[in-house]
Amino acid sequence: MPRYALLVEYHGAPFAGWQRQTSLPSVQGAIEAALARLEPGAHTIAAAGRTDAGVHALGQVAHCDLTRDWDPFRLSEALNYHLKPDPVAILDCARVDDDWHARFDAVERRYLFRLISRRAPLTSEAGQMWRVNHELDIVAMQAGADRLVGYHDFTTFRSTTCQAKSPVKTLDALRIEAVPRHAGTEYRFHVRARSFLHNQVRSFVGTLERVGAGAWTPDDVTAALDARDRAACGPVCPPQGLYLAAVRYPQHPFD
Amino acid sequence: MPRYALLVEYHGAPFAGWQRQTSLPSVQGAIEAALARLEPGAHTIAAAGRTDAGVHALGQVAHCDLTRDWDPFRLSEALNYHLKPDPVAILDCARVDDDWHARFDAVERRYLFRLISRRAPLTSEAGQMWRVNHELDIVAMQAGADRLVGYHDFTTFRSTTCQAKSPVKTLDALRIEAVPRHAGTEYRFHVRARSFLHNQVRSFVGTLERVGAGAWTPDDVTAALDARDRAACGPVCPPQGLYLAAVRYPQHPFD
Repeated sequence: MPRYALLVEYHGAPFAGWQRQTSLPSVQGAIEAALARLEPGAHTIAAAGRTDAGVHALGQVAHCDLTRDWDPFRLSEALNYHLKPDPVAILDCARVDDDWHARFDAVERRYLFRLISRRAPLTSEAGQMWRVNHELDIVAMQAGADRLVGYHDFTTFRSTTCQAKSPVKTLDALRIEAVPRHAGTEYRFHVRARSFLHNQVRSFVGTLERVGAGAWTPDDVTAALDARDRAACGPVCPPQGLYLAAVRYPQHPFD
Repeated sequence: MPRYALLVEYHGAPFAGWQRQTSLPSVQGAIEAALARLEPGAHTIAAAGRTDAGVHALGQVAHCDLTRDWDPFRLSEALNYHLKPDPVAILDCARVDDDWHARFDAVERRYLFRLISRRAPLTSEAGQMWRVNHELDIVAMQAGADRLVGYHDFTTFRSTTCQAKSPVKTLDALRIEAVPRHAGTEYRFHVRARSFLHNQVRSFVGTLERVGAGAWTPDDVTAALDARDRAACGPVCPPQGLYLAAVRYPQHPFD
């Protein structure tokens, strides 16, 4: 059966997360249902990152196996047709080797977290960022972020339900960018690693927001990391600012 | 009665436009209802631009008269509280002279139109841009736009229901910016004039999109302008890409 890689964008709000569930809408379930419209029967797809409820993607990567030999462009167009009106879009599609795996072959995941400091509620961009009322100190936040980069035991920054065998990971980058907006300032957290623990990015951002607000110091971040204790983490921030931005492979399946 | 200027952001989708209507939701109606929660009775507010159904604002300006002497910060917070859950936000508020007028004192309006060229449907940003499937030639679009800048009879580019006394206006700027996106290319049309005719920006963008697609030439734009005939206009584009971006005054009421 020919295998295809799919580059997927979605808005997470209506979904209980990536992973298929019996009675709740999921992104995986939506794409598998669209595949069943093209080739009847059960489909099981695998993705690079199993995003949580409410988390978005700009560049999730998944793979599927089909019986027919599909032209990749026609396959993405047909899937987009059947995905309507769900907010899930196939941005690109490519034929890959039969043993290529969207999850196991991935060598890097990139997440984006969008945090905005402004007093007024969001209108057009509601559901696309986490909004806080107060001002944030980006220099302090970046100093805190720098304490997290590198090879560490991230027990403090993973959910107690995390199923990864080890909490020891290498965080390759955590860069914060300030973007002036017509109202307030947006802070974009660019986070990069080979793989992530459950709730890791939201635990980082929730903790660093406390540093930006002046409630924590960068030294408090180091202390929390060193504690290797989930109870030492700052508050986990809400999902609507988080985007799985990109996944990298040794040989990228898309152009 | 003290007068206050309001800087207003909104998402146009749920509204029949700015202007109050008897039986349809409007932005004006939503703000007037919020004002009535602060000071009971009928309120009538005036705005710099009466945006159409589905059109958004980043920086609409309106004014209202109140009996009490409100602290401007507290007034905007109270209005935002009562505007929930409507996608309307008061970004700023300022006390102004009793004869200051949001519409008649305005000396410039700025509109933004967001057009995106990409194959896949939009997900998180659905309702915030006009999407076309095909590629667009920005050099050709800008050449067409340049034909419209200046002092002209814009009969071709206004709705037949436009109530302005004269179709002769000065278009100060129409600049198109290409913004690469993770999927496709976004084209931002920055349009600037003292005042606009009804449907003028959407008539411009709908026509220039035809130029970008190669169906029209810049000379066709000049011919359409010279015709002074509404029937010579290209297709009027949909409202969801249009934003009233800013309004300028000789002395700006906000910081």
